[in-house]
Amino acid sequence: MKLYDGGRAPNPRRVRIFLAEKGISVPLVPVDMGAMEHRGGEVTSRNPLQRLPVLELDDRTVLTESVAICRYFDELQPEPPLFGRGALGKAKVEMWQRRIEFNLFQPVSHAFRHVHPAMKEWEKPQVPEWGEANKSKALDFLVLLDAELSLREFAAGDAFSIADITGLVAIDFMKPARISVPPELTNVTRWHGALAARPSASA
Amino acid sequence: MKLYDGGRAPNPRRVRIFLAEKGISVPLVPVDMGAMEHRGGEVTSRNPLQRLPVLELDDRTVLTESVAICRYFDELQPEPPLFGRGALGKAKVEMWQRRIEFNLFQPVSHAFRHVHPAMKEWEKPQVPEWGEANKSKALDFLVLLDAELSLREFAAGDAFSIADITGLVAIDFMKPARISVPPELTNVTRWHGALAARPSASA
Repeated sequence: MKLYDGGRAPNPRRVRIFLAEKGISVPLVPVDMGAMEHRGGEVTSRNPLQRLPVLELDDRTVLTESVAICRYFDELQPEPPLFGRGALGKAKVEMWQRRIEFNLFQPVSHAFRHVHPAMKEWEKPQVPEWGEANKSKALDFLVLLDAELSLREFAAGDAFSIADITGLVAIDFMKPARISVPPELTNVTRWHGALAARPSASA
Repeated sequence: MKLYDGGRAPNPRRVRIFLAEKGISVPLVPVDMGAMEHRGGEVTSRNPLQRLPVLELDDRTVLTESVAICRYFDELQPEPPLFGRGALGKAKVEMWQRRIEFNLFQPVSHAFRHVHPAMKEWEKPQVPEWGEANKSKALDFLVLLDAELSLREFAAGDAFSIADITGLVAIDFMKPARISVPPELTNVTRWHGALAARPSASA
């Protein structure tokens, strides 16, 4: 088994954090996204969408999509349960994982890709007006999330889950996207600080 | 338990199809999205994101996000397994559900919301250039999907899954978004025809 990794990019980081929280070690194949290696033959032949990470099993079966790769490992090694426990617990993790992905991670990603000059070759066409519109989408959601985080420790309940991993990665991605967490959102700041202090955050 | 439903909108339809495939009946509360009722107090108090569907359990617990609601019912009633079987089967369903959601369903949705005049009050700001850019994103993915569907019956393998439901809803949503499946993509057309012929499609 080997994991084609994309270094500092947010999706590869999601999977590395997940594996660190599970205590699972997978051999990494580094791919230099800055040098556009993810568009080369080694990645493209495995993922025609040319995105990372890509997991290749020993029988050459390929899995792509960060959350699908995480779910594969969660099924192989259920403890600790990062997708929740029980029907309602699992549904709540799915709900918050998706809410954070669609209303924070994606808007931050679009704000970065459609505005940052370094992304001109990545995002065609860059639509700066769309990028700017996403900054307020992300900020609107952070207000909602802050109210939720005043009620509990983690995004989906009292236990750490993949929803928190997506949240940590999204908030760290705000820096290159030039969006700041407003200082009055003290619950988001407390939550992000606790996630960033976990050993997995540096995976 | 009750399900706040949004009629013809694609996400409420995803959940109704899923429930029909499972043979599960849930009391529906109709919400007239054309009259903007999803922004009224009844929905907003349950989902501050003002989106449908919303599932309310008997103890007033609220679940939102179509796929989270589907996963809740899948956990309560695992057969037939619409999220896959076994670690690899579940990971493949997750992979294709996400690939179809991010590369077809979302682009079609953006093409509709950012271009269609009726969406002016829904999507602020409408960015027509972004809407148009999404048409080719959707078409590019359909070419990839067509090649995959030449190898197997359903999106994620030999069994029907939630990835197919997302695909059916996305392709039907292409009509109001004014995007057509190119006639040479015969595998996509065969697949869509088979999904549309299932009794669940009219749920």
